[in-house]
Parts: sequence; C-alpha cells; structure tokens
Amino acid sequence: MLDFTIQNVLIATDDDYATVDVQIIDGALAKLAGGIAAIAPNLQVIGTPIDGKNKLLLPGFFNAHTHSSEMWQRGIMSAFPLELWLAELYDFAPLDPEQVYLSALGTAVETLLSGGTSVVDHLVLIPGLELETIAIATRAYKEVGIRAFIAPLIQDESLSAGIPSGESAQKHEPYFRSTAATLEIIEEAVRQFHRPDEGINILVAPTGIQLCTDALFEGCSELSDRYNLCRHSHLLETRAQEKLAQEKYGCTAVEHLKRIGYLSDHTTLAHCVWLNDADIAILAETQSTVVHNPLSNLRLGSGIAPILKYRQAGVNVTFGCDGASSNDSQDLLEAIKMGSILHNVTDSNYQHWITPRQAVEMASLGGAKGLNIADKLGSLTVGKQADLVLYDLTNLSLLPRTDPIGLLVLGRPTNVVNSAWVNGKQIVADGKVTTINVDELRQELFNRSQWETKRKSETVAQIEAHYRTVMGL
Amino acid sequence: MLDFTIQNVLIATDDDYATVDVQIIDGALAKLAGGIAAIAPNLQVIGTPIDGKNKLLLPGFFNAHTHSSEMWQRGIMSAFPLELWLAELYDFAPLDPEQVYLSALGTAVETLLSGGTSVVDHLVLIPGLELETIAIATRAYKEVGIRAFIAPLIQDESLSAGIPSGESAQKHEPYFRSTAATLEIIEEAVRQFHRPDEGINILVAPTGIQLCTDALFEGCSELSDRYNLCRHSHLLETRAQEKLAQEKYGCTAVEHLKRIGYLSDHTTLAHCVWLNDADIAILAETQSTVVHNPLSNLRLGSGIAPILKYRQAGVNVTFGCDGASSNDSQDLLEAIKMGSILHNVTDSNYQHWITPRQAVEMASLGGAKGLNIADKLGSLTVGKQADLVLYDLTNLSLLPRTDPIGLLVLGRPTNVVNSAWVNGKQIVADGKVTTINVDELRQELFNRSQWETKRKSETVAQIEAHYRTVMGL
Repeated sequence: MLDFTIQNVLIATDDDYATVDVQIIDGALAKLAGGIAAIAPNLQVIGTPIDGKNKLLLPGFFNAHTHSSEMWQRGIMSAFPLELWLAELYDFAPLDPEQVYLSALGTAVETLLSGGTSVVDHLVLIPGLELETIAIATRAYKEVGIRAFIAPLIQDESLSAGIPSGESAQKHEPYFRSTAATLEIIEEAVRQFHRPDEGINILVAPTGIQLCTDALFEGCSELSDRYNLCRHSHLLETRAQEKLAQEKYGCTAVEHLKRIGYLSDHTTLAHCVWLNDADIAILAETQSTVVHNPLSNLRLGSGIAPILKYRQAGVNVTFGCDGASSNDSQDLLEAIKMGSILHNVTDSNYQHWITPRQAVEMASLGGAKGLNIADKLGSLTVGKQADLVLYDLTNLSLLPRTDPIGLLVLGRPTNVVNSAWVNGKQIVADGKVTTINVDELRQELFNRSQWETKRKSETVAQIEAHYRTVMGL
Repeated sequence: MLDFTIQNVLIATDDDYATVDVQIIDGALAKLAGGIAAIAPNLQVIGTPIDGKNKLLLPGFFNAHTHSSEMWQRGIMSAFPLELWLAELYDFAPLDPEQVYLSALGTAVETLLSGGTSVVDHLVLIPGLELETIAIATRAYKEVGIRAFIAPLIQDESLSAGIPSGESAQKHEPYFRSTAATLEIIEEAVRQFHRPDEGINILVAPTGIQLCTDALFEGCSELSDRYNLCRHSHLLETRAQEKLAQEKYGCTAVEHLKRIGYLSDHTTLAHCVWLNDADIAILAETQSTVVHNPLSNLRLGSGIAPILKYRQAGVNVTFGCDGASSNDSQDLLEAIKMGSILHNVTDSNYQHWITPRQAVEMASLGGAKGLNIADKLGSLTVGKQADLVLYDLTNLSLLPRTDPIGLLVLGRPTNVVNSAWVNGKQIVADGKVTTINVDELRQELFNRSQWETKRKSETVAQIEAHYRTVMGL
C-alpha cells in the first residue's frame, strides 16, 4: 500500500459531524500494513492526497452471512419456506469450480459497492472437491482484495433430517461423508488457507442443528480452540427448526448448543428468528453474536427475528445479506435499511427503534466484535486498520443534503461508494472496483447462464406433502 | 411522438417469455397519441428501430402514492410514529415554490428510473399559494413527461385533531381555511389543470378521516362525480387512527366512508393497515383500491397491511413509495420488492405468497385499475397506450441470467432502466432522462440544502406526552 491522506472529509462524531483529515500510514502500527495514524482537521498531507470534500467516511461494513454460490440461482427460486427452498436449491446447485469462482467475485463486488469491506462466506462445498472449492473462493477474494471470512458449510446428516418427523419417526439416508472426514477437510483448509494477516480467515461453520450431530459441533469447537478460529452457524431460522430441536434434544437449540459448548464471544449465529427469552439470555451470557438477515427472513417467510429484544438484552447484532438465492441481491445497504426499519412494527415504543447511527455501528463494530477483531477493525479510530469506505454525498440518491447517515441508511443509495480501502489498500476508486475487470465478470456471468422460466425440483416433489403435514398446512 | 418498433425484445407471456417485436404507432388508436399497434415476432419496422436484444419490456408501473415535497426532509426525520412524525414534518415543511418544483422533478426522475411511468402526488399545498403549488407541480411533471395524477392534499381540521383524545375530550383550533374555500380551490384546479389527454390529472384527495369533516369528503365526492375525477385518501395508516375513528364515528373508518359514499371503483386508499375482515369485505364490494406503501409503514412503525387477505378477498392492490420523508427514497422497485416479500411472514402457507409476476401486475394493471384507466394502460396489450419501460438484462444486478422478472422484483436492480416511454414519447434513453437536465437538478438540490445533524420540533414537544398517554406508552 501507499500512504495517503483523505482531506476535508465528513466523519460522524458522537452525535454530530466534523470535517477532518485522515492519515493512513503504512507500518504506522505494529503488524498492520495500513493503519489509521491520525484524524484531525488540517493535518499535514502524508502520501497521496485524496479529496474528501462532500464525501462521508465510514468504517467498512461486514456482510456477516452469505453463501456466494447462490448467486447462480438468484431470481428463480420458488416462493417456498426454507426447508422446501433448500431442496430446490440443492437440486440445482452449481458444481463447477469456475462458477464458484465467478460468484465469489460477484458477491465481493456487490458487497464492496454497497459499503462492505468484509464478507463471511458460508461457502457451499462441491462434494469431492471440498478443498478445491475453498481454494477457489480464497483466490477470488484475494483478487478483489475484500477481507474474507470463509466458513466452509458442513453437515453430517442428510437433507431430509432437517424436517421435523412429526408423529412417526422417520429414517434418513446416512450422509455421504463421515464426521471425521469432514473435520479433517476443515483442518486441512485451516493449514492451507487461514492467513488472517493476509485478509483470509477460515471459520468452523456447521450448517446448524438441523443437519449436524453433536460430534460435528464438538469437533468444530475443538478446531476453533486449537487454531483460534471464529465459529459460525445457522440458528433457528424457521419454526420447523424450533420443532426439530425439541424432537432432537427435548430442549431448545440454544440450550443444547450452550450445553455442548459451541457458544462463545467469537461465535456468530445467522438468523436467530425463533428464540425465547431464556434463549436470548443465553446469547447475552455467552457473548454470542446474532447475524440478522432481514431480506432472506422475509423472502423465505421465516419470520421477524426479535432484534430489538436482542439489543435490549445486550446481545451483539450485525447484518448479513444471506445467499443471493434468498434475498436476491448482495446489497448490504439494503440489508441494513431493512434490518433497521423492519422492527419498528414489532414495538410501538419508538424509543426502542434502531436509529441510522446505531445501524451503522451494528454493521461495522458489530461485525468486528462477532469476528473477534474489534480491537483492529469496525470503527474510525486511530490505531485501527484502514478498512474504509468513502461515500459521495453529491449523488442524486443522497440529495437534498440533510443528515448524511440518515440518507445512507434509510434512503436507497445507488452508486454512492466512491472509494473503498481494505487494510489501507484502495480497491474501489471513482465508484469502480480497481482490482478486477467487472465488465469481464459481467460477460462471464452472462455467457454461463440462460433465461429460464421455471423448473421442477424432484426433491421438493418428494418431501412437500410430508412438510405440509408436519407444519399443519 | 415518432413511430417506433422495438425489435427482438423479451416480453412476459402467460407463464413464460417470448422474443417479439413491438410496434408503436402515432394515431394508430383513436384519441391516443402513441399506441401499441402490434406485438409479434418478425414485424415490419415502422418508424425508428429500437434494439430490444437482451432487454425486457414491461408496462410502466404506478407510483400510486407519494408526497413529492417530502424529498426535502428525507434522511433527517426522527424515528417517530406517524402522528409525531407528521408534527415534525409540518414544522419544517418547505414553503418555497421553487422547492416544490425541484422535489417534483426529483420524484419524477427517481420514479422513472425505477420503472414507474405514472405518479400519484398527494401534493402538500403551500398555505395561501395553493393553486400556484399545483401549477408548479404540473409544470414539473410536464417537463419530465411522466404521467401525473396530482392529488392536492386537503384537510379542514387542525393537526392536533388527528390524535385520539382518550378519556377527556380535547378542544382543537379551527383550521385556517373553510371547507367551502378548500373545495373552491380544488374546483379551480380542475378547471385550470385537469387535462387527462395531456397526461395531467387532478384527483380529489382529502388527507383522511383523521383531519377531515364529512362535509369535505362529501364535497370531494360531488366534485369527483361532476368532473369525472378519481378519488384518493389515506386510510387507517396507524392504530391511533383506528382508535380515532371509533371516537369520532362509533364505527370503523371504512364503514363510515362507505356510509358517506366516498368508496368507489375509482377510489385509491393509501396504507389500509388497520382494517378488520368486515372492512375488507366493504373494500371488495365497493371495488376500492388499496395502495400499499410497505417502506413507509415499516419506517413509521405503522404495521404490516394485510395484503394477502386483500388479494384473497378480491381487493385490487397496487404499490406506492409514499413521501420520501417516510421511506426515504422514491424507488418503486424497492417498494415492489418489499411489498411482495414482507407478507410471507404473515402467512405460513406459501401458496398464498405474492410471486414476482403477480407483483408486476399489481404495480402496473393494479395501478391502472385504481385510477380508472385500465382500458388504456397497465398492460402490454395491442390497443393500449404506450407507457413502457425497457430493462437492460445485461446489468450486473440482473446477472447471472435466470428468470428476468424474478431478478427484477426480488433482486436489487441498479441502473437497469434503459428506456421509458409515456404515451409513446421517449423520456428515458440509454439509462438517462432525456427531457430535463438531471445534473442541474442535482446541483440545485445540493445548493438549496445543507447537512444537518438534528433539529427540534416544537409541535412534537407540545403533543408527545399526550400521544404517549393515549397510546399507552
């Protein structure tokens, strides 16, 4: 990286704005490539001057839960709840490494151009090509330069086990790979790819209680402790999963995960829609982080996660786009907007509502806390790494001028990211990603796809009647 | 207008897509400037050829409820429910005709660039300059070329009357203008500006039962009958209004509006959040149209309108952005997306969920029905007027290629409107509005505003305690 100084830029102060200069200096901080060295008015220009006039500087946001390869099926998935949607998704999952590469690029680009400098990719692995899948995603994220938290999605039970059995016990096919073999893949991925200082992190990430044994969760906890890895999982996304947990454990999923030791201050849990008050207290006590994916929860009819309750209980909350098949975009500003205003209908006391400034903090510092790097990222603080985004406040979608953060969070900002840096390296300039050729990416996505009207999932046909019966539909 | 033929364009058929040519011919239809003359593959090129390859053609959508001048306060309004929000809004309402002009332009541009070719502007009038306000909005919409339905917002009770009184009866200041004088202004506006053939329509539009007497509603109905005008109003946006209706009428607002004859097949009703089953039956019976404003209803915590119930009861539903102070954008695609997926959490039977194709029909034909022009607009049909939008399917936000309408409705399309025509006249080409200088507009919006952190509404300070008591907060 090169040193640079952003001049005359608007930043948020406690409850106001200030116009300042921000110096980013290579090697200014021990072990950091590019760190925030000073924030004050009228600083000396060190390195390249960057014009911050009429622009807002914020810490980069975290897209704290997604599945990049779902990009291939966005726009076409049926209007189904999660359990049937997943069956359809898996029937048509992309199995070509090149597709995985392109959708990781696409996910990174859309995240970056909507204010995200970090992405947690709960990465679907191609069976038999697991390490290759992880290698490809790593390559894509390194090329773009976004900070990546790759969470290889693993399970050790077959898909049908994820639906409650109801009255009669069901038999399920065993999963095609043993628990031990799966854990071995993850450990090998950590050895090969886990390089936090280079912006690539591997997480342990069992998909969730609906498709994982205790042995898998415990094996993941053990790897997490041994290699200092963050932990990730889906948690209680649907009412069906709430039922299933009671069938499987005789208690709530949260109680069970606490008992087996998966919850921690470096555990991020996607969704958390169907938790009760005791569960919420457990999340607070274990300092676990909730990743709220509002668009996906609406699209799949999963429900409205009780985010205001989480915040009142002191549970850390951040935002994710979730995979593009259940959203169907990777626009983080959209997720932040919806994840803020959606909850106003759940509590008539408006003093509890999430303000735009709180939403920005949830999306930045909230993500950093969940990923155990709040000491290095998540705020505009001298001594932290420079994962920064500069927004153009002269864009029509942010006019007329009122409250910049209010406009950014509550409006529908379009083409507003002027520049972005990850660890001091500029990867967006003048509104364009500078590290890869986005036009070529667009052409590849076009060439490798075709317009489709509809399609029929065989697995859905097999399980739909059972699902409807169990769920009382 | 000039005749033109869109070649090789994708259109939606019953449950598939087809590639066709579409001829738009001046004078092809009696009384129509630009009409759809033919839709079929391999047509002769008449007039200018337009390349439709890799593009999707849809009928223009209706932004069926907004308040254009609210654009001046987007991003800065406090996190309040409607009643307090309105007090803050009015304390800072723009009172300068030039501001009204610029925000009407801005509303038109954002609507157009998100697929809308018609806008219903429930226009806030500057006191003492009522006809001038309407003249200015008319001028702005004519300049842009969008089809405008100007609904001058009127009331004849003072703002405090809009909050339920609770136990003790409250006294309110009389409104500053008499009911008769208000109706005279509307009648004069009709004489001066109501020119449906030129794309400018005046509607009668009392703001709602919370601030209007029966005399005002009845006077509006009479004008509507005499001049063949559509009718518009807010209806039961909040729980407070539901309470107020019971206090005021001893029955629901819908029962009362039916009794006084305001409901009809040319009445559009914004919000409709707090209706019961009997109310819904009345809307169906009177063929009234619900305008769903999902973003605003969330932002103000008003609630989730029972849209799936409306559809099941046969009530026509269409979408609006609502004013930009409660949204805080005018992006119609965002309103359509949220207005579709939001309801999935209200009904676990996914067979009732709104599909992307249904959403497109609600946004186009649904709007045309509500505004009593479904014979002329709202679908891609030979013999209808050419209010059309052409979407670029090679845009990154619509890739990879899957189901074009699914991507458009469920994704987050950005910069996807390639061209738009209103009554056969092209007003967007190559992604740019061709009729006005949008860069100049941007500059004017910038120059006439400044970044603000916060502000204090005096009226809110006066009424907040009473509001909290009455609402049990």
